[in-house]
Amino acid sequence: MTELNHDLPDSESYHPAASSLAGHVDPAVMAELLSIRSSIDNIDATLVYLLAERFKATQKVGFLKAAHRLPAGDPGRETAQIARLRRLAEDAQLDPAFAEKFLNFIIGEVIRHHEAIAEDHHNAAGRGPGGDGGGPASSAAGPTTPLNA
Amino acid sequence: MTELNHDLPDSESYHPAASSLAGHVDPAVMAELLSIRSSIDNIDATLVYLLAERFKATQKVGFLKAAHRLPAGDPGRETAQIARLRRLAEDAQLDPAFAEKFLNFIIGEVIRHHEAIAEDHHNAAGRGPGGDGGGPASSAAGPTTPLNA
Repeated sequence: MTELNHDLPDSESYHPAASSLAGHVDPAVMAELLSIRSSIDNIDATLVYLLAERFKATQKVGFLKAAHRLPAGDPGRETAQIARLRRLAEDAQLDPAFAEKFLNFIIGEVIRHHEAIAEDHHNAAGRGPGGDGGGPASSAAGPTTPLNA
Repeated sequence: MTELNHDLPDSESYHPAASSLAGHVDPAVMAELLSIRSSIDNIDATLVYLLAERFKATQKVGFLKAAHRLPAGDPGRETAQIARLRRLAEDAQLDPAFAEKFLNFIIGEVIRHHEAIAEDHHNAAGRGPGGDGGGPASSAAGPTTPLNA
C-alpha cells in the first residue's frame, strides 16, 4: 500500500502500513497516522533492545547474589529506585504513578529470571554451609522475595 | 557512602549506593554490584524518557482519531505490531512472550489516555453527526476498545 511494503512473506516481514482502517480513511489523515506510527515503531524497537540490555544486567546481579549467598531483596535499593524514577518521570512529563507501575512490572519479570538462576545454582551446588541469617538455603530467592538488583 | 553521594536532602537526591546490604557484604562484591546497578540506573532513565516520548506520539494519534471520528481499535495494526516486537525480541535475546506482555502493558496505559482524550473531545463537541458504523457516538472509544495507535 506504500513503498515501504516488501514482497517478503507475511511471517517474515513487517508492514508499517498494516491497518484495518486502510481504504476507509481520508488519505491525508491516513498519511499523518502512518507518520506518527512510524515514530512509535522506532521507539518500540529501541524499547525492546533496551529491555534486553537491562535483563542482561539484572542477570549478572542474579549470578552475583546467588554466588555470594546474598539476600534476595534490597529494600533500601528498591525505595531509592522508585523515588528516582518518579522524579525522572516528572521531568519527562510522564505520569509518575505509571513509571512506578512500570518498574514494578519489570521487577516482576526479573524476579522470575532470578528464581530460575537461584534454582539452578542451588541444584548445581547442593546444600552449602548455613547462611548468615539462619534460614534454609533454598529461601534465598523464594517466590515472594524480590531480587530486582 | 561513596563519592557519588551529595549533601542534598534525601527527597531531592538519589543515592546510587543506597542498599540494605551496605556493611554486610564483602567490599569487592559490593563494588561489583554497584557497578552493575549503575548501568541499570542509566537504562532505567533512558526507558523513562523513551516511554514519555512514546506517550507523546500516541497522544497525537488519540487526538487525530478523535478529531476524525476514526474507530478506536485497529486489529490489523495490533497484530502486525505484536508479530514485529516478538521478532525483534528474538534478535535481542529477550523472551518474545515478555515483549508481547510488555506491549500489552503499555497499550493498557495508552487506552486509559485515549479514553480521556475521547471523553474530552466528546464533551467539547457535543453530539456530532452520526458515524459511519451506525453505533452511538460515545462508543468510538469505549472502555473495552483498544485505541493503541
